This record gives sequence, C-alpha cells and structure tokens, in this order.
Amino acid sequence: MSLSLSLNQATVRPLGVAAAAALCARHDIPAIGLWREQVADCGVARAAAAVRSAGLRVSSLCRGGFFTHADPAARAAAVADNVAAIEEAAALGTDVLVLVSGGLVPGSRDVGLARRMIADAVGSLVPAAQRAGVRLGIEPLHPMFCADRCVISSLGEAIDLAVQFPASAVGVVVDTYHVWWDARLPSEVARAAGRIAGFQLADWVLPLPADVLLGRGHVGDGVIDFPAIAAAVLAAGYRGDVEVEIFNERIWAAPADETAATVRERFRAVLGW
Amino acid sequence: MSLSLSLNQATVRPLGVAAAAALCARHDIPAIGLWREQVADCGVARAAAAVRSAGLRVSSLCRGGFFTHADPAARAAAVADNVAAIEEAAALGTDVLVLVSGGLVPGSRDVGLARRMIADAVGSLVPAAQRAGVRLGIEPLHPMFCADRCVISSLGEAIDLAVQFPASAVGVVVDTYHVWWDARLPSEVARAAGRIAGFQLADWVLPLPADVLLGRGHVGDGVIDFPAIAAAVLAAGYRGDVEVEIFNERIWAAPADETAATVRERFRAVLGW
Repeated sequence: MSLSLSLNQATVRPLGVAAAAALCARHDIPAIGLWREQVADCGVARAAAAVRSAGLRVSSLCRGGFFTHADPAARAAAVADNVAAIEEAAALGTDVLVLVSGGLVPGSRDVGLARRMIADAVGSLVPAAQRAGVRLGIEPLHPMFCADRCVISSLGEAIDLAVQFPASAVGVVVDTYHVWWDARLPSEVARAAGRIAGFQLADWVLPLPADVLLGRGHVGDGVIDFPAIAAAVLAAGYRGDVEVEIFNERIWAAPADETAATVRERFRAVLGW
Repeated sequence: MSLSLSLNQATVRPLGVAAAAALCARHDIPAIGLWREQVADCGVARAAAAVRSAGLRVSSLCRGGFFTHADPAARAAAVADNVAAIEEAAALGTDVLVLVSGGLVPGSRDVGLARRMIADAVGSLVPAAQRAGVRLGIEPLHPMFCADRCVISSLGEAIDLAVQFPASAVGVVVDTYHVWWDARLPSEVARAAGRIAGFQLADWVLPLPADVLLGRGHVGDGVIDFPAIAAAVLAAGYRGDVEVEIFNERIWAAPADETAATVRERFRAVLGW
C-alpha cells in the first residue's frame, strides 16, 4: 500500500496559489497544501477555483494556532482568527487545518500556562471545526521551537492534547522534521491511530543554518529514516496525502520546476511510492 | 533545603584548571566541574592538586561518551578511552563522569542502531565504573543535537537506558538547557529518583546563534523556569552539587571574574540558594 504525494506550498514559497497549483499539475503531484497568506493574496474563491481547475486535492490549510497571549482579548482574537481559518479550509475543500499552537506566553516562563491556553483555545474551536467538517491538526514542533513558536514539542504531547476532544474534530500532524529524534516515536505513532490528520516530510540536514527555521532539506538529503516513519504512519491507519514541506531559502531561490521535480523524484526514490 | 553551587569549567573555557579553581575560591563557589581537555593540559595529578589546594570539591568530570562508530575497532577505542576517563575521574576525586553518548553512526540513519551501540558501551563500562567508584552520568542532549552529538534526546530515554544497569554505576544528568521543553519532565525527574548523577544549569536564550552549540545564557537571562526544575530535582532526592555550565562565546570573551560573580549572584537570586 502506498500514500499519495502533496506539495506543501511553503516548499515553493515565492509562488502564488495558481502558479503552485499549475506546478503540481505539471509534475504529476495530485494534491497541494495551501497557506493562508498566499490564499489571502488572491482570495479564497479564486484560490479554490485555481486548485480545482488544476485537478488537485487540497491536503491541508496551513496554518492556525498561535494561541498563547497574556491579554485575554488577544487570546479571543486568536480564536476568532482560527474560526476564520476553519471556514477558509472548508471553502478551499480541505478537511485539515494545521495548528502551530504558540510558544511561551510573552513575559512568562510557565510552559504549563502556555499549554493550558492552547488546550482552552482548541476546545473552544471544536464546535466550529465540527460544523465545518474540518479537523484541527495539532502539530508538535521540534523542541528547539518550544520557546517562541510551539510549546507542543513531541508527538506524545500532541496526542495527549488531542484525545481530550472528539477525533472528528481534533487530530495530530506528524512532520518528520519535528519528531524524527524521538525514541518514543514508533509507539506514539501507533497510539495516534485514528488521530493522524496530516503527514509531512522534510529532512534534517546538518549543519543547521543561522536561522534554524530554514534548515530543512529535500527528502533524502539528510539523516531522517523516512521509510521507517512512513511505515509506522501507514500501520497506524493513515490514508491521507503526504505533504512535502521544506523551508529553505536555497530551495526557494531555485527554479520551482526543479524543486517540484526533485520532490516528485525523491518521494518515489526514498519511499517507493 | 538547598543545594550547593559548582562552576563547570566550560563556563570559563579559556582558563586552565588552576586558574579556574582559584576563580571558584575567590567567588565563594565550593566546587568545580572539570573537563578532560583542560585536565590533560596540566596533567591529572597537578589538576587534582590545584583543586585540592583551592579547597574545592570536584562535582564531575566532563566528559566521556561518543560511542557510536561503524567500525568495531573505533567502538572499542571509545570504550577504552572511557575507561581512562573513569580512572581520571577517580584520580581527580569526583564520583561522576558525564557522558555525551554520540549521534547517529556516520553513514547511517538508524537511530536505534546508535542507541544499541550506546547501551552496549555503557554496559561494558559498568565493571570499570564500579571498581573506580565512579558513576556514569548519561546526559540527554537537546533533540537538536540528536544527529551529530547525542541520540539520547530526552530524560525519559536516558532513564530507560540507565535502569538497565546498577544505580551505583549508571545514572543520568539533568541539564536544564537540554530538557526544559519536555512536557514529561516533572514526571521523568521523579522517576529518576536515585539515578540523578548530576544537575547542570544554563538558560535558553533567543535568538539561537549561528552555532547552536554556543547559545546558552546565564541563569535568568532566558526562558527556563529554574526554580520549578530545581524543586523537582530536590524532591527526587538529589543532594549533589549544581553545576552552572554555559557555552557562549561572549561569556568566554568576558573577564572570568565577572562571569564567576554573575554565576554566583544568579544562583542566589534565581534559586535562592
């Protein structure tokens, strides 16, 4: 059994939605993961039409989250913005909204406080998610982003949060770049059965660049054992698309067709899919 | 109840053992953590004498480890070098050898293979450690170092490894910089009761520098909740010294007396000890 490839738009960040959709169509990539910023640039209706006319599925919308604020009004605004993101996801024809939950509350060292704010926010979004038929995908980020982007630092922690809510409304996103190091990954992926809302690929390449946000590599260029993780995700029952999502300035500077061809070829070569 | 401060020599890396020992004595710091490189520069006997004449305890020797090699001869050499480190630790009067276990085996993506090599190496060192009365302290490193320095990426994983061996011979080292992000940290520290061989402090300061090895900050300069972690370590029964160990080029360039004064003052101000 194999899973199907999707190109996350972040991999070709300079492109608008229509250009990225056309790129996928040219390279035999049947799905695309969209980003709210680029969708906003052209409008939701036009983005949906562009993807539809290219014959693509939308594997996810990236991203909601960033729930951790000291000011209650800022927290309420974050929830409202996430409700809007849920509605955008539905309008774009995807049933997954990826969440990057937020780092420490500014001025606070209390990781537990940040985690409670995230749990509260996710809980308050469940009704909107269920109405829209969109699943919130809690994505654990690598622990090096714990302070400033996401205090949910391991898959186990994301699952512990997700299982507080209905599986139809809240799942987890497995991104190889963020979770590959975890000795508990195999057992946690198994525990995530029925909760995996998304599966994303990027490789861990050394040395890390000055901006550690941008250090990801093409599948196969680094140290991650993709076949092992993919087999675990498949064994856990995941049947959705597999997004390749790479943040890397050198890849953004490369011709998009070259990038898409590499994504397509590595997916076949490394995973055999 | 309070614990006692130790200055890990890495915090004042340009200094030799004798100068670092004198620095501790001047700043009311009753213990020092030594590094093999600096000990080798002056010889074990002279290093031991310098520390003794300054009236200090040696809280640990850093470091053994780096067990992960494809070549069996290289693995055997690493074990032999660690036996030597155990003997050095005993000669220096400390009962703790800190281990940084090693990253992925070069040319391999198999984290499990690296972990098995580490378990084998630690097991083979147990008799030498018991003979010398030196405990091996398995230190989990932050997951951003998993590929190239240490595949033991969480405290839980370090404990899982340590408990395979006698508690007198193998423990774990809790370094705030490496483990602060972990949602399971409180429960894992509790589980480590009787196994905590060392406790080290450094703060997580943003932004990360270009070389992520060197991004640590003085206690209180970053986001880590030291009182919470220290209380958990104390509750788990740890009664050893607390090393401040900071890798930071700006701190290395500062006058050592200024650094030691800051270490001393922050330890009092942040932990109240």
